[in-house]
Amino acid sequence: MSQRTHSDAESAVDRAIAAFRAGGPVAIHDAADREGETDLVYPAAGVTAEAVARMRNDAGGLVCVALSDAVAEAFDLPFLQEELDHPLTADHELGYDERSSFSLTVNHRDTFTGIPDSDRALTITKLGEAAADPAGFPFVEEFRAPGHVHLLRAAPDLLDQRLGHTELGIALAEAAETAPAVVVCEMLDDETGEALMPADARAYADREGIPYVEGADLVARLG
Amino acid sequence: MSQRTHSDAESAVDRAIAAFRAGGPVAIHDAADREGETDLVYPAAGVTAEAVARMRNDAGGLVCVALSDAVAEAFDLPFLQEELDHPLTADHELGYDERSSFSLTVNHRDTFTGIPDSDRALTITKLGEAAADPAGFPFVEEFRAPGHVHLLRAAPDLLDQRLGHTELGIALAEAAETAPAVVVCEMLDDETGEALMPADARAYADREGIPYVEGADLVARLG
Repeated sequence: MSQRTHSDAESAVDRAIAAFRAGGPVAIHDAADREGETDLVYPAAGVTAEAVARMRNDAGGLVCVALSDAVAEAFDLPFLQEELDHPLTADHELGYDERSSFSLTVNHRDTFTGIPDSDRALTITKLGEAAADPAGFPFVEEFRAPGHVHLLRAAPDLLDQRLGHTELGIALAEAAETAPAVVVCEMLDDETGEALMPADARAYADREGIPYVEGADLVARLG
Repeated sequence: MSQRTHSDAESAVDRAIAAFRAGGPVAIHDAADREGETDLVYPAAGVTAEAVARMRNDAGGLVCVALSDAVAEAFDLPFLQEELDHPLTADHELGYDERSSFSLTVNHRDTFTGIPDSDRALTITKLGEAAADPAGFPFVEEFRAPGHVHLLRAAPDLLDQRLGHTELGIALAEAAETAPAVVVCEMLDDETGEALMPADARAYADREGIPYVEGADLVARLG
């Protein structure tokens, strides 16, 4: 196996930015000493029913939409842990970070049950629209909670503050000059019952023509 | 195609009860004039990582655990819509029922990120344990919120009050004399982007040796 070079990392980031500009997905591995998970990540605005089907068939995790702190603030979207007044939210020690990014769950009001691929694609693309114009988008008129798409709220200072898929995805959206709303879905391994190993995630990405990028390389370039 | 008879319906319900007693899954179609969705439904207590993988690969919806009203009450698990103080929860008109069953999302505290199959199986089996002994189970010590498994809260009077998969699954658990905690996951169609059609869900169930049952037949027998 050849040594990874500085320019390999640079070109992986370039390919990821180009893919995002074109509306396509990227596979992002956060870090071996964090979650150790690779997520499929799409800019929200162009997500189709087929893309939702790919996420649930090929990745398998939760279909979540990460929003920048500014967008979340504009729509008054809290961290769920702070919003809930329940003892289950106390002593929330995570092994990989100080807190989770979970905000509310939502459906677009024009969905029926909210779960089929076409329903989730509608919710997700409308979240992309909302993030592109937070001052002008009538969020409460368009969405209801609870729903079937998890919102995630990014840290205000992004990669200076937190290195989760939420922040990595939003930083990539900013670099690609797309709206700060990205879908993330964890890649799982059918055989082991664990997160898909980075080598397997990379092999999948290569096979599918999807850029695979390491969180550390995104941080080096965009942080 | 042969006419469905009263005894076909009876034996479908019998097979579903027997499957649940043995810890296995059942496919339940609610009704054409309600969600029109078929869910894969398992008793929570025996769910393995392989079962979680089957749900995400073969069904594709949200992996949720429905709890009886009594169990939810014992653990102070609210309807999320009532718990959230946010305008997104107002005017929550659904096309298929008066309200959703969503309660909190949880992870067992011994999970790492909470999303891999082994993590979700741990969360789900522990919810089965909790439901088997609500008076003795230290819920807040064992779970945290928010998490990666959605809790659903059944209507107090079950099928007399609501005919969702939540109530159908809990009624089936009671008939099978298993703990009132069941996993439900909607079956989706990769091709159409919609809910899997009942005929396709039934064909899948037949192929896999899983009982398929109509909500109306469960209501006629258990309601």
